[in-house]
Amino acid sequence: MHRFYQNFTLGVLGGGQLGRMLVQSAIDFNLDVNIIDPDENAPCKNLVSKFRVGKLTDYQSVYEFGQACDVLTIEIENVNTDALKQLQKEGKKVFPQPEVIELIQDKRKQKQFYLDRGIPTADFILTENRQAVLENRNFLPAVNKLGKEGYDGRGVQILKNESDLEKAFDAPGLLEKLIDFEKEISVIVARNENGEMKAFPPVELVFNPIHNLVEYLTAPADISSEVASQADAIARKVINELDMTGLLAVEMFVTREGNILVNEVAPRTHNSGHQTIEANITSQFEQHLRAILNMPLGDTSMKIPSAMVNLLGEDGHTGLAQYEGLEKVLGIKGVHVHLYGKKLTKPFRKMGHVTIVDQHTESLKEKVKFVKENLKVIA
Amino acid sequence: MHRFYQNFTLGVLGGGQLGRMLVQSAIDFNLDVNIIDPDENAPCKNLVSKFRVGKLTDYQSVYEFGQACDVLTIEIENVNTDALKQLQKEGKKVFPQPEVIELIQDKRKQKQFYLDRGIPTADFILTENRQAVLENRNFLPAVNKLGKEGYDGRGVQILKNESDLEKAFDAPGLLEKLIDFEKEISVIVARNENGEMKAFPPVELVFNPIHNLVEYLTAPADISSEVASQADAIARKVINELDMTGLLAVEMFVTREGNILVNEVAPRTHNSGHQTIEANITSQFEQHLRAILNMPLGDTSMKIPSAMVNLLGEDGHTGLAQYEGLEKVLGIKGVHVHLYGKKLTKPFRKMGHVTIVDQHTESLKEKVKFVKENLKVIA
Repeated sequence: MHRFYQNFTLGVLGGGQLGRMLVQSAIDFNLDVNIIDPDENAPCKNLVSKFRVGKLTDYQSVYEFGQACDVLTIEIENVNTDALKQLQKEGKKVFPQPEVIELIQDKRKQKQFYLDRGIPTADFILTENRQAVLENRNFLPAVNKLGKEGYDGRGVQILKNESDLEKAFDAPGLLEKLIDFEKEISVIVARNENGEMKAFPPVELVFNPIHNLVEYLTAPADISSEVASQADAIARKVINELDMTGLLAVEMFVTREGNILVNEVAPRTHNSGHQTIEANITSQFEQHLRAILNMPLGDTSMKIPSAMVNLLGEDGHTGLAQYEGLEKVLGIKGVHVHLYGKKLTKPFRKMGHVTIVDQHTESLKEKVKFVKENLKVIA
Repeated sequence: MHRFYQNFTLGVLGGGQLGRMLVQSAIDFNLDVNIIDPDENAPCKNLVSKFRVGKLTDYQSVYEFGQACDVLTIEIENVNTDALKQLQKEGKKVFPQPEVIELIQDKRKQKQFYLDRGIPTADFILTENRQAVLENRNFLPAVNKLGKEGYDGRGVQILKNESDLEKAFDAPGLLEKLIDFEKEISVIVARNENGEMKAFPPVELVFNPIHNLVEYLTAPADISSEVASQADAIARKVINELDMTGLLAVEMFVTREGNILVNEVAPRTHNSGHQTIEANITSQFEQHLRAILNMPLGDTSMKIPSAMVNLLGEDGHTGLAQYEGLEKVLGIKGVHVHLYGKKLTKPFRKMGHVTIVDQHTESLKEKVKFVKENLKVIA
């Protein structure tokens, strides 16, 4: 275990909502946190001893930032890994490891990795450009993904039939068989430097069909114990095969036949683990810190069933954020609001989330509906 | 409800551990927090947009600090209430109200208030000086309390018999009948501007007999439902009689006959509510914010039984704090460590606390023992 509580600095690349919730957790460990983010008004701006404005994809700015840190971590994958490798060479700890980040930055490499390591995933074809997609039209219906720079629903689109082909990405990407899945689930698994491993129980994700963003989730997922333990085993296999230290979110499809396919992974805290703050013995943020500082990992079990609703900027509203209906939802038992501290809202921007805890599944679902109908981010 | 999430500043007098945990909670509401504290290295130093060094008992420094704030609150009672009254006159909201703070600053007024309002409390005699204590020696065994400036176990002592009389306080104070209580419990109750009121379930406090500091607590308290509902009713009566907005911690004795006597109250977040962060639907810190910002109050029920162990500086150790045994206790299921970010330790200084959650009372108690035996703050 690192002596993290004195003369020790944790550097985080990215100062958005994930960094913000990580800082809330880091306070409990008396961690000195430094953050770099390109946005001078990033959500973490006022919450840490040192906040630096800089591009995460720029070698020099990441390298200079890392100099003052003992351990470095990320809240977004799109960072300069060459700088992280150099820092690692100079003795800094970097978790997740730069090699893991690189692999995951590129969805093509990610898919190939699953195939090579026997991790179940949907069939796919690598495509170099639009022409390659056109040549593989017999693979449709398929999901067309950009290899790099996809994030928060961008760089992913469905090509149902030939009439969709015109929008095919004209850059290195892939075509993935469209899976007729029954559910999407996620398992977040942690692994520390000692190799200790712990996974959170699977949660069930409901995506907004248009924007490919998580609309809400429920925990635990409504799946059989067989599917749950299979999902758990797959998540562990992925983090082990990656030989990764840190936290890994593994999003999976459960097919109508009850098989599991890995969809995508994120080597960091993740939207599908926000409910752990209120609902589990250890939150994903504390678990991430425990993993990268080589502390014993925390108990992941649930204290209470929960749901999490993402709070996205209302369509048609751009400007200073106002939270309509906040008082109403705060009046509901078990509601906990997380606002991310973003001054400006725009359509579908992630502005916050709402966690709801409740012993009863039925009332949980009613409350999800109430929150979605009543709480709006407008300008 | 105040539109607290934009162009709004909450000012907190005091930047210690209570302010620190309040800030962690305030982040979720996107609250801009300003803090004033006399210590330039106070635990809140790096966590807020504006941290000001200044004396809390000084009129000018409190008054100037308050100018930039919309709502003011406290994390310690020993503040300049004249400045708060002036700020209130100028339109600032101050919760708890300055009049309540004044009443509670003076244990003599506090006791008289209980008597006047029919709130059960131990018999007492007001004493102006040591001579007055001597004249009331037939009241022994008694607790001798200073009227003002007692805090964290200071200004309170037991006078068992005449040989203890020499240490009697030579300042305005009181003598309180020593109660042969069975348990000490605490109920934290909140009240918002609308008058909505919610109380947390009673917790059971175990004090360090030498330093008069909470050593650990367990939640729920092991008391009958009759005693629990009596304690709940008394806490509600106190906050109502005070006509107070905010959070009030009511410490009570349960006598061997099953009667309840109010010992002391604190008009703020309190050591006896730290476990609510992990163990209750709403934490005391979120509840305090809801109360003073006139939001609907949160559900106070327990998610899981818990215990809280205070982490005090080890006797004989002064200097840079080291946390011996941290790895061991983090290896125990359900343990959550809160370090307060104090660089220097000294004997019995509150350096942090440990919350333990566990479904089973027996294993909770074993874990309390383990934490107390294994985790030490040394220099």
